[in-house]
Amino acid sequence: MGTAEIPDIVIGRLPIYLRALSRMALEGARVTSSHELGRRLGISSAQIRKDLSHFGEFGKQGTGYHVDFLVGKLRKILKVDHEWEVALVGVGDLGRALAHYNGFRDRGFKISLVFDSDPAKIGARLDGFEIQDAARMGELIKQHGITLAMVAVPAEAAQKVTDALVKAGVRGILNYAPINLVVPDEVRVQYIDPVVHLQRMTFYV
Amino acid sequence: MGTAEIPDIVIGRLPIYLRALSRMALEGARVTSSHELGRRLGISSAQIRKDLSHFGEFGKQGTGYHVDFLVGKLRKILKVDHEWEVALVGVGDLGRALAHYNGFRDRGFKISLVFDSDPAKIGARLDGFEIQDAARMGELIKQHGITLAMVAVPAEAAQKVTDALVKAGVRGILNYAPINLVVPDEVRVQYIDPVVHLQRMTFYV
Repeated sequence: MGTAEIPDIVIGRLPIYLRALSRMALEGARVTSSHELGRRLGISSAQIRKDLSHFGEFGKQGTGYHVDFLVGKLRKILKVDHEWEVALVGVGDLGRALAHYNGFRDRGFKISLVFDSDPAKIGARLDGFEIQDAARMGELIKQHGITLAMVAVPAEAAQKVTDALVKAGVRGILNYAPINLVVPDEVRVQYIDPVVHLQRMTFYV
Repeated sequence: MGTAEIPDIVIGRLPIYLRALSRMALEGARVTSSHELGRRLGISSAQIRKDLSHFGEFGKQGTGYHVDFLVGKLRKILKVDHEWEVALVGVGDLGRALAHYNGFRDRGFKISLVFDSDPAKIGARLDGFEIQDAARMGELIKQHGITLAMVAVPAEAAQKVTDALVKAGVRGILNYAPINLVVPDEVRVQYIDPVVHLQRMTFYV
């Protein structure tokens, strides 16, 4: 199956399905249905069946999905059936919270390099990481063959950091800085900005 | 203009436009164009013009947009021309980072109540806030007339917290817990989960 044929909006729902199914597995569920999954997610069962049908047959009419099997399939489709090393740039409050966050590991990710440009932070330990000098970012990221990074620096520094990451081979950036990044076509950026999410709600409230 | 007629995906882009325009204003720009804005955002100028046309005429053919004027209009459309009080529930690493975050205020939001259920945290000061007992959440949120909340509690506690928030009158929830929330139709939820964003990129990388 070519990835080009699958709409990006479908890909965007797969991690949500995976998260819900993983939780069901944790709760002891062995079998589920598109109805049950849809009810949990506020998505129609028809939508879920249609989304999954892009990737083959995962359930049988009337018997539903085997939770563990579908979790395995989704992990494979999303390529998180192995662990990705991620670089974290910026050790302010948010970067620190990300470094402490224990929700990455069993979901396919591991922070393995942490950078900051503040001389007062460089060399310090943070949860088992040594904070590295941002000046060595390109060199170390290449050395480790890292392709994913989280950017948690101030808006003013984000584009420059991004340029260096892209030059070092990073192909996916999770950007926490409240600014749009300009990147080449082959690089993906996802944005996390609480204000953007809040403003999206105030329109309706 | 009825909000029902405007696609949600258009509403979702407005905060991005507002953020970029606010930054342009900060950089001293007084006039811009849909081309310039599109170039910054990686969105076509035609898309930007079409999105904005839902709300009236903001620019003139050939002369572009007045940045301050458009910022003002977008703030009004998104209802962030005044400041919203927001409740924060959960003072772990992430909650702490959110409480410290200085990017809310000049973008329409102010954290005004902070809750946790940990007796060791209740009553402590956090950046000028006194951490309140989560048991008093409903009462205090009603008293303050707060309609927006950020949930930064563990996944296991998030639905229970949400139920209490909704009961107290909250109509918009920014959920950081890695779990889908079930809410009544009149309540909006936005999700922030770094793993979901990372998984959305690994499919392509």
